[in-house]
Amino acid sequence: MRVLVIGAVACGTRAACRLKRLRPDAEILMIDQDQYISYGGCGMPYYLTGDVSHIDELRRTTFHAIRDERFFKEAKGIEVLTRVKAEEIDRRKKTVKVRWLDTGKTEEIGYDKLVLATGTKPKVPPIPGVDLEGVHTLSNLHDAIRIKEKLVKGEVKNPLVIGAGFIGLEVVEAFGESWGLPVTLLEYFPQVLPRLIDPVLSRIIENHLRKKGVKVVLNARIKEIVGKNGKVVGVRTEDGFYPADLVLLATGVIPNTDLAKQAGLLVSPLTGGIVVNERMQTSDPDIYAGGDCVEVVHLITGKRMLMPQGSLANKQGRVIGTNLAGGYARFKGTIGAFILKCFDMSIGGCGISLGVAKAEGFVDATYALNIQHERAHFFSIGCSYYNLVFDKRTGKVLGFQSVGPYTDGTLARVHAMSTLLLEKPSVADLVELELAYSPPFNTALDPINVVGHVAENLIFERFKPIEWEEVLRRLRERDRDLLIVDVRTPEEAKEMVQRYPNWINLPYQGAKEAIKTLPKDKDLVVVCSVGTRSYEVVRWLKAEGYDRVFMPMGGVVLAKSWGEDVR
Amino acid sequence: MRVLVIGAVACGTRAACRLKRLRPDAEILMIDQDQYISYGGCGMPYYLTGDVSHIDELRRTTFHAIRDERFFKEAKGIEVLTRVKAEEIDRRKKTVKVRWLDTGKTEEIGYDKLVLATGTKPKVPPIPGVDLEGVHTLSNLHDAIRIKEKLVKGEVKNPLVIGAGFIGLEVVEAFGESWGLPVTLLEYFPQVLPRLIDPVLSRIIENHLRKKGVKVVLNARIKEIVGKNGKVVGVRTEDGFYPADLVLLATGVIPNTDLAKQAGLLVSPLTGGIVVNERMQTSDPDIYAGGDCVEVVHLITGKRMLMPQGSLANKQGRVIGTNLAGGYARFKGTIGAFILKCFDMSIGGCGISLGVAKAEGFVDATYALNIQHERAHFFSIGCSYYNLVFDKRTGKVLGFQSVGPYTDGTLARVHAMSTLLLEKPSVADLVELELAYSPPFNTALDPINVVGHVAENLIFERFKPIEWEEVLRRLRERDRDLLIVDVRTPEEAKEMVQRYPNWINLPYQGAKEAIKTLPKDKDLVVVCSVGTRSYEVVRWLKAEGYDRVFMPMGGVVLAKSWGEDVR
Repeated sequence: MRVLVIGAVACGTRAACRLKRLRPDAEILMIDQDQYISYGGCGMPYYLTGDVSHIDELRRTTFHAIRDERFFKEAKGIEVLTRVKAEEIDRRKKTVKVRWLDTGKTEEIGYDKLVLATGTKPKVPPIPGVDLEGVHTLSNLHDAIRIKEKLVKGEVKNPLVIGAGFIGLEVVEAFGESWGLPVTLLEYFPQVLPRLIDPVLSRIIENHLRKKGVKVVLNARIKEIVGKNGKVVGVRTEDGFYPADLVLLATGVIPNTDLAKQAGLLVSPLTGGIVVNERMQTSDPDIYAGGDCVEVVHLITGKRMLMPQGSLANKQGRVIGTNLAGGYARFKGTIGAFILKCFDMSIGGCGISLGVAKAEGFVDATYALNIQHERAHFFSIGCSYYNLVFDKRTGKVLGFQSVGPYTDGTLARVHAMSTLLLEKPSVADLVELELAYSPPFNTALDPINVVGHVAENLIFERFKPIEWEEVLRRLRERDRDLLIVDVRTPEEAKEMVQRYPNWINLPYQGAKEAIKTLPKDKDLVVVCSVGTRSYEVVRWLKAEGYDRVFMPMGGVVLAKSWGEDVR
Repeated sequence: MRVLVIGAVACGTRAACRLKRLRPDAEILMIDQDQYISYGGCGMPYYLTGDVSHIDELRRTTFHAIRDERFFKEAKGIEVLTRVKAEEIDRRKKTVKVRWLDTGKTEEIGYDKLVLATGTKPKVPPIPGVDLEGVHTLSNLHDAIRIKEKLVKGEVKNPLVIGAGFIGLEVVEAFGESWGLPVTLLEYFPQVLPRLIDPVLSRIIENHLRKKGVKVVLNARIKEIVGKNGKVVGVRTEDGFYPADLVLLATGVIPNTDLAKQAGLLVSPLTGGIVVNERMQTSDPDIYAGGDCVEVVHLITGKRMLMPQGSLANKQGRVIGTNLAGGYARFKGTIGAFILKCFDMSIGGCGISLGVAKAEGFVDATYALNIQHERAHFFSIGCSYYNLVFDKRTGKVLGFQSVGPYTDGTLARVHAMSTLLLEKPSVADLVELELAYSPPFNTALDPINVVGHVAENLIFERFKPIEWEEVLRRLRERDRDLLIVDVRTPEEAKEMVQRYPNWINLPYQGAKEAIKTLPKDKDLVVVCSVGTRSYEVVRWLKAEGYDRVFMPMGGVVLAKSWGEDVR
């Protein structure tokens, strides 16, 4: 069996190696346009930070061998041609016309089975100036090398990143933290990590970025990248001008599907990805495709989408290898699990955000928020924030997001939730979930259990949530219908009580009796630090017949973590 | 509704508070024999280490209020009587006779619903000397205070711990790491954490303990605890004498069921726990029980067992509270999730160990081992070890264990696996599982995916495993039928090649050709660092028609981590 693999980074090499292990007799040829193959692309931001000392570190196996052509030949028995571009597929003849980029030589290569792992190219926004010197993308090792060189030579004083997605946030950290540079981050949407994270959490990240010295500009409408003598000097938006000597476009990627289209394979006009079945076969069963160039099914929405992630590319490659070897393996879709580090923060999630849920027609979708130490308080290194997206009518869980300090604690909860989400769980399943506990790692009830409790209390309408935005607006407007009932200790509440006439203190311990004097003709907003004490007082108020009682989830800690002037 | 709760630590207080939040009109009385109530018992070892500075830290809420009688009264509206013992239940009259321990006064208290959360008492082994001064258990705050006092006063020079379970290992760390004392650890079984962790991993922990200066004595047959003038001076086993001025009995716990038995409630003669249904009702539907005093169903074996864990007690308490309030909540059983810290190590797991699986009649149970960095190598802080227990015939997963450095990485994998285990997964489900990845947190394929790969390769018999014990024995015996084929680099293999005539080096890169010269009439044992390279060479050998080919899972790293003299 002759197998030709086009593209030799994640999916392609994984498919080839898996096949070769299962069928050592298979004759495998891999080709790639680039000289660099089989590298850890997700590590590129860490080459910029310096965590990866040499670019070759991204090309080594765990046993320190460089994965080059010779390695694949000698260790794997797989032929690799680099700097060779596939130009045309003849599906009838089962050949691929390839061109050596250095010599221009062309050749037709026959195949029994073909694998397309052609990856993506950066999405370049349609604005003037993207070709200026100093405008970069970060989509391959060459890009990474070029940017790092400039950093090392001290040529970058004023970096600017366009796009606050995964790469954008990781690179902002590299520029800001590792190189001590003043970074500007421009984002088209009104929040960082749009669609991935809901504003209730993204505002925490934005505040963290600002505290770290990043100039975060949301709702940025870029008019042009401005140059002088062919070199970038800044970016002009509708609202202002941001000087920059390096601009990184982190505005997403587009699947490389020219070859697939030329061959007449089905490519989705909606997503732009190559269409494959669960076995990763294209519309031609002898041609497989995988990695960032294919579309995948989102297991929550049921819709096809792009999900360019190294972990999925590796999984899909293995599926292809197994199927090529005559086995039966499937890639059923994605649950959308992600994790990233941004300065001192971990950010992770799975499923869909509330914004996406609403857009997808989940009209009863809502969220529950839990702020909790992720370990026993004597082992804690700070609070984490957990946001559960669920359908209030059916109780079905739709998504989960978390931000917290940089430990693996966020990973732990995302791991549990992405595993659970496969089973289309209800809120009750979160409440029941058994998660390991001992004080150096967790609290007796895991944050997942507790966010389940909050969601359950919302479903049973045990409290009425109110958004902090509304509370703060009405406070500023001196709304006489509003009374903030702060059930923290007098010390904790003091400053706010002094500041606002309609912010009063009824300490939790004793509130059960004290609340009886509260007016019934005002909107009572009960607050504490994170919502534990206020929830109980809300229950007492309800028992006393109070109806106009509200509670902002996350307490004052949430508003504070957004950077609001709340103490 | 009058509810009487007997026992006010984890389950009892959780039940009472949950009920009160749902039904503020419920009249709740909690009683406890002790003066200390509602404390975090799992934190006691960390009071000994000093991570918890004052014992009251274990009694505080996250907002720093001490959970005493006054707190429950003022904040929760729950009446609490401490130092009051329940002596007799009259189920017909629905009363409980209680006795004030300080005054001797007795009283009959009526109830509509009763909750038994009576906890456990330490299991004291039937050996002479357990009553000597200096022999301790660690089952309540008084114990913790007493031991800490001795440590602070410098009265402990030579602590000895009997029992290498959770508490045993945590306390050994406290004595050894925080107080710099030479600790002896005696364990009856031939391994630490018997039944919980299989020997393939427990040997790693034992080696770690020894490196940390702990004298680990396995298979210890204790004859007596030896005293002089009423004070402990050591422990005598069948094999020797171990001096000690403090002996901690960490030999497990026994449910407190006297009261339940007196009342005629069903108590399991097999497990010793109070029998409850999923709603946590005892054989009397008006009497609920939960926490360490009840038996629970193990969701893998289907059998009833004891699982005294704070996290489960909390969950069960919430279930009781909901049901008392007229709701419908269930505790379906336990998946056996656990995590603990021991010196620089995280140890966790869920499901059942291979030892338990065999004992439970899973005749085709076996294990797969994966040793892997839990993050991208440039963020790694060391290898972790993952052990998957599964049924080789059906592919069903039975259990999972992991040890690794003290990060939350182990927790992350245990969280995912304990969640997955609820669904009775197959090995294929592990392979497919989508787990979030970025280099600061994970590798592109999560260790769970990879241990799934190993298991799958075992199921399809793609390699024949061999135990390191057998390899090492045959090496020592100079077995001429054995040839170790070390496919690491010449530098890595050098020392072993020099040491053993039948240990040869065929570097991985090039092994594909070089193996053709190997003899077919010997047992070839292919080894590398952790098993990645050796697996591929095994596949080449098979393709060349070699049949007597074996591979120890985990490679030389495993044997080394046991403390074996292998390089």
